[in-house]
Amino acid sequence: MSTLHATNPATNDPLPGEFPLASRAQMDVAVRGGHALLATDWIRNDALRAGLLEQIAVNMEAARATIVERANLETALPLPRLNGELDRTCMQIRLFARLIGQTGWRGDVHVPGNPNRAPLPRPDMRQTSLPIGPIAVFGASNFPLAYSVMGGDSASALAAGCSIVVKAHSAHPGTSELVAGCVRSAIREVGAPGSVFECLFLSNDDAGALVQHESLAGVGFTGSLGVGRHLMDLAAARPRPIPVFAEMGSMNPQFVFPGRLAEGAAQFAEAFFGSLTLGVGQFCTNPGIVVAVRGPALDAFRNRLVKLVNGSTGATMLTAGIAENYRRGCDRFRGGSALLGHGEDSGANTGSAAIFEVEASAFLANPDLRHEVFGPAALLVVCDSVADFAGIAEALTGQLAASLHMAAADAPAARDLLRTLPHVAGRIIANGFPTGLEVGAATVHGGPYPAASDSRFTAVGDAAIRRWLRPVCYQDFPSELLG
Amino acid sequence: MSTLHATNPATNDPLPGEFPLASRAQMDVAVRGGHALLATDWIRNDALRAGLLEQIAVNMEAARATIVERANLETALPLPRLNGELDRTCMQIRLFARLIGQTGWRGDVHVPGNPNRAPLPRPDMRQTSLPIGPIAVFGASNFPLAYSVMGGDSASALAAGCSIVVKAHSAHPGTSELVAGCVRSAIREVGAPGSVFECLFLSNDDAGALVQHESLAGVGFTGSLGVGRHLMDLAAARPRPIPVFAEMGSMNPQFVFPGRLAEGAAQFAEAFFGSLTLGVGQFCTNPGIVVAVRGPALDAFRNRLVKLVNGSTGATMLTAGIAENYRRGCDRFRGGSALLGHGEDSGANTGSAAIFEVEASAFLANPDLRHEVFGPAALLVVCDSVADFAGIAEALTGQLAASLHMAAADAPAARDLLRTLPHVAGRIIANGFPTGLEVGAATVHGGPYPAASDSRFTAVGDAAIRRWLRPVCYQDFPSELLG
Repeated sequence: MSTLHATNPATNDPLPGEFPLASRAQMDVAVRGGHALLATDWIRNDALRAGLLEQIAVNMEAARATIVERANLETALPLPRLNGELDRTCMQIRLFARLIGQTGWRGDVHVPGNPNRAPLPRPDMRQTSLPIGPIAVFGASNFPLAYSVMGGDSASALAAGCSIVVKAHSAHPGTSELVAGCVRSAIREVGAPGSVFECLFLSNDDAGALVQHESLAGVGFTGSLGVGRHLMDLAAARPRPIPVFAEMGSMNPQFVFPGRLAEGAAQFAEAFFGSLTLGVGQFCTNPGIVVAVRGPALDAFRNRLVKLVNGSTGATMLTAGIAENYRRGCDRFRGGSALLGHGEDSGANTGSAAIFEVEASAFLANPDLRHEVFGPAALLVVCDSVADFAGIAEALTGQLAASLHMAAADAPAARDLLRTLPHVAGRIIANGFPTGLEVGAATVHGGPYPAASDSRFTAVGDAAIRRWLRPVCYQDFPSELLG
Repeated sequence: MSTLHATNPATNDPLPGEFPLASRAQMDVAVRGGHALLATDWIRNDALRAGLLEQIAVNMEAARATIVERANLETALPLPRLNGELDRTCMQIRLFARLIGQTGWRGDVHVPGNPNRAPLPRPDMRQTSLPIGPIAVFGASNFPLAYSVMGGDSASALAAGCSIVVKAHSAHPGTSELVAGCVRSAIREVGAPGSVFECLFLSNDDAGALVQHESLAGVGFTGSLGVGRHLMDLAAARPRPIPVFAEMGSMNPQFVFPGRLAEGAAQFAEAFFGSLTLGVGQFCTNPGIVVAVRGPALDAFRNRLVKLVNGSTGATMLTAGIAENYRRGCDRFRGGSALLGHGEDSGANTGSAAIFEVEASAFLANPDLRHEVFGPAALLVVCDSVADFAGIAEALTGQLAASLHMAAADAPAARDLLRTLPHVAGRIIANGFPTGLEVGAATVHGGPYPAASDSRFTAVGDAAIRRWLRPVCYQDFPSELLG
């Protein structure tokens, strides 16, 4: 296969357009060209990089109608969602443009020398940050704009001064190409070096070769655990290992305390159902586990939830492969738990809501139940008491987010859980659902493995730029040499 | 072998003391106990952790005479050096105690919510930092105090709230045990939980098992590239990969511009010889490569340096193995370059200075010349002109430090080199040598692989604590629940 074609997941029909796979030589030119940029003024020209980012956002907004129309055909995501995602994408790009417009964003530190210090003079030490080098960006199928060609990884890496080589996602090649066109135009318009950006269609083998390219310096990835871990392994096995910032699977457990359910189990079921089925459950923040205590309030929650689920109709998922994986994931849950209810499938590649239930002891004994099912499926884990919650939390692998749903009377038990849960997840939410991530200076979008490959960084907000920078110290340099 | 014994490297005689190897069960108890601490108040009790660190420093100072005497017997490092190293070690420990005594050291960020924001309310977001969990610390042979049982990795991890399991170095077991005793006493004296610290003698296999322990969260390592990379590979291959902060080999190239040599080649040779032979060349910052331009000034430098080297007498290296590796490393250099001169060996396990010379083209063609020789050996790389310097810099693997030695007239050529060199090294020095690291807020001790495993962090100074922390965000939490 030397050419990709797009498919409309709602109809399985081919979409217009041909997207030729890049050769290894093209990939090599892109990475080497990006590496060569490190020795140029590009990396210190914050104004030019900020200008490029702003122009990219402008161009994407100008091409909005074309982009969202194509993305809608390629992903089956509705137009309002895609318009919102384009807004978010441009907002992220401008966030980084603004950041590098501020003095001091590199975190420079200057400790002046002291020639009179005894017993030895103190040297003059200046710390600044440099980009680590060319970054490979692997976009996600579920955010064709915000985590794709010009998503957060790309914008933060460009802001840092790194060049990027994007592996365009085969699920939305036309959208990728349209956005890449906006970037290429912006590069010409502001006079940035062409080698800061390349967007390539790559076979899986060549994607692996990209991660192993000797001049590559880092990887940004959003997607499944299987692929993410594969890239991590490739990066770790290189002669010179490089960092991979992968955001992967998460079940985002919802701990529901008895007081909260007693206050209104049906209303809680409705709110949960809304979060579970948002975007056909295709968010990394989708709540895939509910942990609660058996009793009449839980029965009320279950009854209402099952009614909602059984009365629901599925919608088209992003790709045929994702819909197929969703069905397999539901079968995996079914192997170790009871299916309480499910929505109705309709049309090609549909995912409909499904609810499963399992006793806490069975959940703890079965690792098959502790891996994400990507889509609108949730597992209800039934405990004897809130004392079991911490054990459930401890048994989970790393999570992007987790919620505590509680009433005032639940505070002591919530405090107990708060000793464990923050060591499992990157974001802990009180009385809310993890979908609808608020991006700001305090946001953490990341978490222990496998939610993310490196819990010490967040993939959103200003701090995401630190992933692509390394500190360097200049000792005893006259400032005119560092200008 | 179930018991370690120490050897005096100056005599090859056994030293008193038996150091039993720990069992896997002991190791398991230590890691699990440290993991359990994450759910306790220990991690938020900054005052208690600061108090523990201070008490450790007090105890080490009180035991100074015993510690340095034993370290001297085990390492052949001279007493003044060891006394200075103990001072530095206590200084580092107190640096972290002071850091966590300051409000805001975690970098907490609070973005208050806004219920009136349109179209959706803005949630309240609080970011704080949590320790990542139990850390394995592998100390170095060449710093029996500052990079060993209570060195920078241990102190920063304890400050962060992590527990530590130290693999005591087999080259200085008695010193390790004495320092471990100071830590254990301090734990009792301040009432800290015993599971914050364990110091074990481990076989190599068990050291690998420690890195693979399911509850381990990170590794600090200082030592050779071979061992460091092995630990990195083990950590990357775990079901849950964990970060390894390894500081490994570095050649710390010295770029000498013609103007500087013209100003005084003999004086420069003397200064270089001093840095090269400091501590028998057993510093990670030891300058192992000199890059210069052929000509009369270089001849004068070479003549003076060879005279100094030939007139020198070696000194005992840290261990018999290190002395043997030093001889092998010199043989490796000899395989691809010319031996210009060497000092005289005397006594057991001696390392004496050795100088080799190679043409730039041969250097670039021979990777064998681009790996560190641990000890007082240096390779003079002769270029046709300063235009060759950048190519040499590009060909080097990652370095901890690199120097530019220059006069005013060298500024244009120095500016050129400064486009490349900072991408190769963590610390760039003007007219100075890399030995004698100044530790402060702007210091970077790290660099691209293989100088360090992760160039985005430094192993010294306050910033070293960030290696052991991860951010977590609390969304919409009433502050009384986070108290």
